Amino acid sequence: MAFKKNLASSKDDNISDWYTEVISKGNLIHYSNIKGFMSFLPNGWKIWQLIKKELTKEFDQRDILELCLPSLISQNDFLLEKKHLEGFAPELFIVTKTSNETEKYILRPTSEIAFCNLWRETLRNYRQLPIKHNQWTSVFRVEKNTRPFLRNSEFFWHEIHSCFETEEQSNDFAVDIWKLYQRFIKDILCIPLVAGEKTEAEKFAGAKTTYTVETIMPDGQALQSATSHNLSQNFSKAFDIRYQTKNNDYQDVFSMSAGVSTRIIGAIIMTHGDDDGLVFPTKVAPYHISLNCIFDDTNQELNAKLKELANKYSQKYRVHLNLNKDSTGEIIKNSQLRGDCCVLLMGPNDLKKNEIVFIDRITKQKQFINLDHLDQKLEELFSTFDQKLYQKAKAVFETKVDFAQTFEEFEQKIASGKFVRVFYCNEDLYEKQIKEKTGASSRCIIKYLDEQTQERCFISNKKAKVEIYFARSY
Amino acid sequence: MAFKKNLASSKDDNISDWYTEVISKGNLIHYSNIKGFMSFLPNGWKIWQLIKKELTKEFDQRDILELCLPSLISQNDFLLEKKHLEGFAPELFIVTKTSNETEKYILRPTSEIAFCNLWRETLRNYRQLPIKHNQWTSVFRVEKNTRPFLRNSEFFWHEIHSCFETEEQSNDFAVDIWKLYQRFIKDILCIPLVAGEKTEAEKFAGAKTTYTVETIMPDGQALQSATSHNLSQNFSKAFDIRYQTKNNDYQDVFSMSAGVSTRIIGAIIMTHGDDDGLVFPTKVAPYHISLNCIFDDTNQELNAKLKELANKYSQKYRVHLNLNKDSTGEIIKNSQLRGDCCVLLMGPNDLKKNEIVFIDRITKQKQFINLDHLDQKLEELFSTFDQKLYQKAKAVFETKVDFAQTFEEFEQKIASGKFVRVFYCNEDLYEKQIKEKTGASSRCIIKYLDEQTQERCFISNKKAKVEIYFARSY
Repeated sequence: MAFKKNLASSKDDNISDWYTEVISKGNLIHYSNIKGFMSFLPNGWKIWQLIKKELTKEFDQRDILELCLPSLISQNDFLLEKKHLEGFAPELFIVTKTSNETEKYILRPTSEIAFCNLWRETLRNYRQLPIKHNQWTSVFRVEKNTRPFLRNSEFFWHEIHSCFETEEQSNDFAVDIWKLYQRFIKDILCIPLVAGEKTEAEKFAGAKTTYTVETIMPDGQALQSATSHNLSQNFSKAFDIRYQTKNNDYQDVFSMSAGVSTRIIGAIIMTHGDDDGLVFPTKVAPYHISLNCIFDDTNQELNAKLKELANKYSQKYRVHLNLNKDSTGEIIKNSQLRGDCCVLLMGPNDLKKNEIVFIDRITKQKQFINLDHLDQKLEELFSTFDQKLYQKAKAVFETKVDFAQTFEEFEQKIASGKFVRVFYCNEDLYEKQIKEKTGASSRCIIKYLDEQTQERCFISNKKAKVEIYFARSY
Repeated sequence: MAFKKNLASSKDDNISDWYTEVISKGNLIHYSNIKGFMSFLPNGWKIWQLIKKELTKEFDQRDILELCLPSLISQNDFLLEKKHLEGFAPELFIVTKTSNETEKYILRPTSEIAFCNLWRETLRNYRQLPIKHNQWTSVFRVEKNTRPFLRNSEFFWHEIHSCFETEEQSNDFAVDIWKLYQRFIKDILCIPLVAGEKTEAEKFAGAKTTYTVETIMPDGQALQSATSHNLSQNFSKAFDIRYQTKNNDYQDVFSMSAGVSTRIIGAIIMTHGDDDGLVFPTKVAPYHISLNCIFDDTNQELNAKLKELANKYSQKYRVHLNLNKDSTGEIIKNSQLRGDCCVLLMGPNDLKKNEIVFIDRITKQKQFINLDHLDQKLEELFSTFDQKLYQKAKAVFETKVDFAQTFEEFEQKIASGKFVRVFYCNEDLYEKQIKEKTGASSRCIIKYLDEQTQERCFISNKKAKVEIYFARSY
């Protein structure tokens, strides 16, 4: 027997339509009348605040200090680091004053330049190092194809910017943050991932090395979910950020930057959502429990009991109490669309029987639970919820990851929506060809092969230099 | 015997120079190379985060939901509410895309328009009301004369925007938030204040009534510190925000908005700072305790003891531990400049005697405290700290507030830097004259007089309508 789902579209049949519908019905955002800009509604913003809370714990442990730099960058400063400029030039928003339209500013597409300006003027000697800064802010990029969370013209992120005395320290910290991101995405967001280094062609404009975390959406497309960059002295030389060393000479500082954006919310939605709506891991779910009155909203005893339960469980869970008498079907549907981890329903008869109706977001099975056992039932649910989400996602992930030996095999697998591992000569030239022929881009190098390798490149047939993933991407 | 102060300038002699110096040496901000834009350094940003934390507690109690709207507003939308437009028109930043310079956007100077767009498209019927929203964000205004915190081109604030079924509800909520601001500024920030309504000339562009909290800086100038506006149906009519009522007809919604900005940090600095640096009330002080090693940074026992103390007191206070052996004088100076509530110093001899040097930020007296009594000493300090700051500020406040019967008296008192109370006919025309002649603007109406009043207006000699404060302002 097939039940009707809450959504008209199906994740398996058309993930693009499903994504649009699940976001809109889940009440996470509202489209602005400016292309690529959106309002975060309270539940959407809550997810970002919960992500912030989880990451901030990690940043605090590393003595990363939070600050906030200006949103505008002067156009002249933007001309200083050429590769960086080339990377961003077509995507910029230009700002002028009504009173003076000749002075021009850029709405920051990222804040390397702002941090460089700050450090150049405040960094004096080695005793100030290392400097570890972070800001939670938004950045602006003109985008042709926009999509909520995945590609917005204004998007929110955190950006860590740090500087060090040596290249090793800078690189180590970039790697440390990259590993933190991997744990965060896997353990907190319950999303399977692949991590590695970007190729020359795909690395961040201005970086020496870009470390990336790639997640794989159910349609086999990659989503670049977190990146950490060793910038070496590329920015410090361009922006003249020098400090006095222990030996009283001067050195350009080594810097790194790293960030995770609201795009990760897109990854959460696509990984865990289903045809009944949104599903969230417990740490970032706007609501754990939706607690509702059914059948009679005038029964004072029932009302009091529900308030008592809301008070009790709010100590431990995020509870949404609804004392309006909506239809039972509507309540369940809205709660599932919204992604509450479970919905509880109680009517006058349930109260008499000391029972409550319990439906969890994963199995969607309706159960009557004696109130004396509710604590235990909730504990069971929440102690295994995240693990179940991860296992479910991992099963899908494994059907999407594949290996190709030849270009023919590769083309076929990319076309069928796979995230494909290959041996590769790592020469820029071929990346362009691959993109033109298959639409796939290199996602991350997972291994550098040694000189003695017998592996051949899948496209050039030269000796392979790396083991790498290619995929189409968001 | 006169001791040398940490700052070269004096708050009493030249508050303007003093303000610039105390901010710069206190390491709160760094000037950007774009006029009116600044970087919040970690300690400056921390103050704002602590303010956010305190206000958020109050907002949560009122079920105000946090969300986040776009930074850009389309230029066309800006033309819809004429008074609002006139209020902001000369101060706007205009945004274009590199790829398309004909479409124009405004960097939001405030978000009434963005909220109106959201509500118009999402508000359907009375069951959704009231809607209570808040966002923490930055806004942008071109300013001729800029000054850190007090007048920036990009400044941070929170803005509450809410809508209701009736004018009374909207006005009541505006008043509720206004009272919350008064308690927050007086009790948490320890700043004496005057509160009242703005005149027609001074109210927010688009508001029906503006409620304001005015603080008085030590030079007698007013600082508008928090405002709450009943917007009535001014915006809903302009932006067509209608909903279906219980009776199935349609009504334009009633709305209000309110905000406190980073300008309040300027008020904290000017109210509490002294010639040795910054001073902060305990709830918003970046550090409560500066804990330092002196004389010997290689003594492992000393090191361990300081770490133990730092761990212990971090449970209750914000502790800054410094294990570098800087000079005692430098440590004390830097701690005072930074505004730590107290500084603790320990050298090897102190450890042997089970003692610590204790200097609080208010009395600046050096005391040796037996470690067994340190808990109690800290508790004493922090239980009375805020009250002492308030009393000190209140004493200054009282020397600045004055009353004038005649315009001559008024001119004289304004010129001598007073915040002057008068009886006033409340006719727009005179406000312009007063401003031209004395530089003072109306700050707030504290009382509407009844028809039977015998009081005469200090400038027109007509029957007085209100009791009101005038002052020069920041």
